[in-house]
Amino acid sequence: MARKGVLTPQHEDFPRWYQDILNKAELADNGPVRGTMVIRPYGYALWERMQAEVDQRIKAAGADNAYFPLFIPESYLNKESDHVEGFSPEMAVVTQGGGRELAEPVVVRPTSETIINAYFSKWVQSHRDLPLLINQWANVVRWEMRPRIFLRTTEFLWQEGHTAHATRQEARDYASRILHEVYLEFMESVLAIPVLIGYKTAAERFPGAINSMCLEGMMRDGKALQMGTSHELGQTFATMFDITYLDADGNQSLVWQTSWGVSSRMVGGLIMAHGDDQGLVVPPRLAPIQAVVIAVRDDDGVVEACHALAAELSAAGVRVRVDDRTGTGFGRRATDWELKGVPVRVEIGPRDLEQGQATLAWRVGGDKQTVALTEAASRIEELLEAAQQRLFDEAVAWRDAHIVEVATTEEVREAAATGFARIPWATLGPEGEAALAEDAITVRCLQRPDGSLPLGDDEPDLVAVCGRSY
Amino acid sequence: MARKGVLTPQHEDFPRWYQDILNKAELADNGPVRGTMVIRPYGYALWERMQAEVDQRIKAAGADNAYFPLFIPESYLNKESDHVEGFSPEMAVVTQGGGRELAEPVVVRPTSETIINAYFSKWVQSHRDLPLLINQWANVVRWEMRPRIFLRTTEFLWQEGHTAHATRQEARDYASRILHEVYLEFMESVLAIPVLIGYKTAAERFPGAINSMCLEGMMRDGKALQMGTSHELGQTFATMFDITYLDADGNQSLVWQTSWGVSSRMVGGLIMAHGDDQGLVVPPRLAPIQAVVIAVRDDDGVVEACHALAAELSAAGVRVRVDDRTGTGFGRRATDWELKGVPVRVEIGPRDLEQGQATLAWRVGGDKQTVALTEAASRIEELLEAAQQRLFDEAVAWRDAHIVEVATTEEVREAAATGFARIPWATLGPEGEAALAEDAITVRCLQRPDGSLPLGDDEPDLVAVCGRSY
Repeated sequence: MARKGVLTPQHEDFPRWYQDILNKAELADNGPVRGTMVIRPYGYALWERMQAEVDQRIKAAGADNAYFPLFIPESYLNKESDHVEGFSPEMAVVTQGGGRELAEPVVVRPTSETIINAYFSKWVQSHRDLPLLINQWANVVRWEMRPRIFLRTTEFLWQEGHTAHATRQEARDYASRILHEVYLEFMESVLAIPVLIGYKTAAERFPGAINSMCLEGMMRDGKALQMGTSHELGQTFATMFDITYLDADGNQSLVWQTSWGVSSRMVGGLIMAHGDDQGLVVPPRLAPIQAVVIAVRDDDGVVEACHALAAELSAAGVRVRVDDRTGTGFGRRATDWELKGVPVRVEIGPRDLEQGQATLAWRVGGDKQTVALTEAASRIEELLEAAQQRLFDEAVAWRDAHIVEVATTEEVREAAATGFARIPWATLGPEGEAALAEDAITVRCLQRPDGSLPLGDDEPDLVAVCGRSY
Repeated sequence: MARKGVLTPQHEDFPRWYQDILNKAELADNGPVRGTMVIRPYGYALWERMQAEVDQRIKAAGADNAYFPLFIPESYLNKESDHVEGFSPEMAVVTQGGGRELAEPVVVRPTSETIINAYFSKWVQSHRDLPLLINQWANVVRWEMRPRIFLRTTEFLWQEGHTAHATRQEARDYASRILHEVYLEFMESVLAIPVLIGYKTAAERFPGAINSMCLEGMMRDGKALQMGTSHELGQTFATMFDITYLDADGNQSLVWQTSWGVSSRMVGGLIMAHGDDQGLVVPPRLAPIQAVVIAVRDDDGVVEACHALAAELSAAGVRVRVDDRTGTGFGRRATDWELKGVPVRVEIGPRDLEQGQATLAWRVGGDKQTVALTEAASRIEELLEAAQQRLFDEAVAWRDAHIVEVATTEEVREAAATGFARIPWATLGPEGEAALAEDAITVRCLQRPDGSLPLGDDEPDLVAVCGRSY
């Protein structure tokens, strides 16, 4: 179906294939300031759907949305030394405002722990104010030397959750709840990406955290993409910003905290986890357009039949679009929708109409089938769910075929050429980790042998998942 | 019901009443950088509901969401002289990024005409690419010397629509369609604020626009608040950024453009248009919490009955919250919900439960009534719509009582002490406008005698609506 040369094949040059998709599927462009990006309508629609799904799960986990300022006084960031060391090389600094030099420069937020915790310190007084569960959807800025659209950009869109709890255990449990019930659940059931979960090693931890949990996806070139993180911040920021509460016995105690986030980087993960040489493949549950009804030609009643079917699909809750641009050739339009990864194309031509039928062309698997027009809507509804499951199953199979269990650092290097290696952390250790880093191979996460989340990075018998990464 | 001294009465000191509401209803705080604000969960929930309602209407008007960078090269803004003159006193400038001085400083967007139109110039080639209808939800920064939370802040949240059309008429029609079908419809039917519409005078026009349409709300102190604007940009930016298309006859032509926006300022408008000495009054269609079910005491079955009724309301599509914090006195909790402007409090105590009933206390009008528990859900659903209508009717009556038709500039001054004055534009003219400006009275808009939108600011027989404003 694809026109020759629309996309560079993945096996030939994966980064170019990625760049081609961004352009041809009209997902995003480079911005004028180095490292920034313009998210075009179709790319933004993917992000909007991700937002809606994640937001709903965050609310179900009890957190409330709020909004904190973009501008943070430099002095706030300087309060926490690990944090400022981690972020200062990436900061954008405003030195002029309203036509004057500012007395104190302000930083464009790279993340909001400092400014949010300054307010937590005002809002938290008694144990009755805990847990305090806040989330914000925002843009953040981290000056990027090697930008790549959606994956590493100077400005990106994300949500950042920030919470305060009475005990360390409660904080840890909540960070883990977000990891499982919000992020893992969303990525597996909506994005159809079977992510690995675990703890970051000390070397890879978020600046200021005592523990970082993460989700790692495998891309079609075998590299890892960190898809989200959930941190235990311990009492680092509570100490810096004096966030204390009066407990039931009348004692002042410091709170225990978490922070967690996913970003527009997930759009890049979606592209690279499912895309193929024909273009993007969007999982039905995520898809902003789940079905496109294409009028093959503008002949008696074809366009009307397309709109009638679309109305039926829409009433059944399917996100549908009609393509009646019959001034453009059918083949070209079909290729474009394939490129955009729309789960199903419903094609109706004059002959189909005569015979009371439509052709369904599925993006996942590439199946084509003819169905009676009267049954089309219900068949599509049913098959969209099947396509979602098939996409996930294929991603699991592909990932599992690209993970090997190994016993030596040398074997890790070999395996990382095409996928991930799992090696006992006791065998690898921080020294082995440092040695691999020289070849740009990192420990993506520490997990239990069965793949589940350990209680911490110090549990015995942990396995290190290693790979190259974005 | 209100505890004495919770809020400064409006008639005593309106600005202090406003500040009190922001604090006591936990809507927002000042940020650490001058003029910035922290939007707290309840304030943000109001904004989120506004966003959802406006976004739906923008999509229905055919525009697609996208996202453009926060950072704009200074040179882009310098391309349009009116535009840069209008915005440069308010700009925040980033001069350092990634630890270095930047070769070219970047401006934090005060609005996005320049950066968006730079991309329109790439995306628009043929008449088939028109109209191009784009919207973005974003934060913008305008350095503010006299900040007031929600009304004038250094950073605020908004949507900005940007469109390109083949003809001037089409552009004007679309700007007017957004004004009527999106903004006016939303403000009247959801916010219950009867706004006035019209054109800005040349003195009040958006920098770079050839015509600015606006919506003006009347606050409870008689002052005006500009609630939204929709501009005809003519070919100003098309010329600067060379946005041309090949028409059907093969000629290159410049596009005609519009831009339009509403912002988090609407939250301030909501507070000041409906609030009273007891607190905020939130219209039911907007309310993030439409009904709160309060357990008066934690006696046999009361809390359970509250949750059961809430489940019934929720199933009926009512946004409901249960208040079962029986450790806090009932009176205090009732006052707090009143302060937050929740449309209806459903109060259930042990005696109510015994008699199978609940008390409904309505925020609009203050009515109280006893209803059978079995009928509570359906009554509430029905009465929420009635409360919405009543709030709007009251706002219309109040506004109309505070607008006078006058014939002289002196009468305008008198009327502006308590509300708006309408005076023939032919009588006032730009000289009268300049004279009034010395007393901080401005022409809010030019409209037809019947209040409708004229075809332009040069239509004969226009009436100038004058008032003091935020």
